[in-house]
Amino acid sequence: MIIGFDADDTLWHNEDGFQASHREFETLLSDYGGPTAIEERLFEIESRNMPKYGYGVKAYTLSLIECAIEISDGHVSTAQIASILDLGHALLDRPVELINGVTDVLDELGDHTKMIITKGDLYHQLSRIESSGLRTFFWQTEVVAHKDPATYQRLLDLHGVDPSNFVMVGNSLPSDVLPVMEIGGKAVHVPYHVTWAHEHHDGDHEAPTIEHLGDLPALLADWGLR
Amino acid sequence: MIIGFDADDTLWHNEDGFQASHREFETLLSDYGGPTAIEERLFEIESRNMPKYGYGVKAYTLSLIECAIEISDGHVSTAQIASILDLGHALLDRPVELINGVTDVLDELGDHTKMIITKGDLYHQLSRIESSGLRTFFWQTEVVAHKDPATYQRLLDLHGVDPSNFVMVGNSLPSDVLPVMEIGGKAVHVPYHVTWAHEHHDGDHEAPTIEHLGDLPALLADWGLR
Repeated sequence: MIIGFDADDTLWHNEDGFQASHREFETLLSDYGGPTAIEERLFEIESRNMPKYGYGVKAYTLSLIECAIEISDGHVSTAQIASILDLGHALLDRPVELINGVTDVLDELGDHTKMIITKGDLYHQLSRIESSGLRTFFWQTEVVAHKDPATYQRLLDLHGVDPSNFVMVGNSLPSDVLPVMEIGGKAVHVPYHVTWAHEHHDGDHEAPTIEHLGDLPALLADWGLR
Repeated sequence: MIIGFDADDTLWHNEDGFQASHREFETLLSDYGGPTAIEERLFEIESRNMPKYGYGVKAYTLSLIECAIEISDGHVSTAQIASILDLGHALLDRPVELINGVTDVLDELGDHTKMIITKGDLYHQLSRIESSGLRTFFWQTEVVAHKDPATYQRLLDLHGVDPSNFVMVGNSLPSDVLPVMEIGGKAVHVPYHVTWAHEHHDGDHEAPTIEHLGDLPALLADWGLR
């Protein structure tokens, strides 16, 4: 059995940093609108830029600057734009903070072959994998642009893994869970306390859910997988 | 024999677009310094940001904005920053323009298994591979963060290719040629008419050089490889 792990908000904290950054952005721009108006405009701009920019801190920072200029009708100051650049740098400089218990779980799953499959900016994700100290737990690490069924199928083919022999574990239903189930793999949903607006999923689903990554070994044992 | 192709400035034009963008940036900031001073400052800022930002248009755009704020001592206007964001969008929106004769060469090398190995922003590179129309010529396409010997070794291992059975073709000595020769592969240098300052190589080298990609089939034939 090969176990795939999402990284952001599954192995380490991520979205909470972006949420804190949103709050600072809203404070910075409070002359030009309330938090809800700013958040809605940012969501629009990120959605518009996503096909071109993809995911990650650099894309986010550029969209923040674009949002600041638009929402202020060009009145935002250069000093405020410099502060927005700093928000981006702060997110990139933020040390990797592992989710509580991750190392123990990876240790406990020592007999299973493990992969990281994470989406986003190639440079930032590779640097976080390196500085997380978790690299040696994993057989393979893959940074992908999109987490869709075709991408999972291509990766599993590349590494010679049959979907029936694969479990994906992650916090995002549309990215980590549903596409893997669609190609005949298993998936486990481990919700994070906040979800990025672009990863919300409203529909029903039948994916097994655990509250904490620490419950994964017991679930796999229930499935007869250890 | 497996042939690896670099993409930017090997299969399609890239650096000329950045150079044109530099000129527009210098014109935009001409109140704050001459072209050389601006170029030097941008080189410094890009070098400083590279370990964090990596390569690509988003990294470039963020460094341009940082450069504009620094070189103007904060006096650059919001409208000018909006124009810099537009320079980034223009580079991302620029249609892929193939280097003359690329399709014929790939056709002519039909019997060889071909890969794209390109460095830079995951989203932009994948979108260019798709829109280039060249996808079907290639067995595999890989976007990597760094083109160093360890990365080439990892990729060749992953795809089950022995370095002695691999030729890499590209315009950059430090990225496409030297690291591949270091791990025991062959490499062919095809210079592009401009080279990004961060890819300059001053040392001696013994890599075979051809003037145009169209000369590749003849070189491989000389080597007894077809």
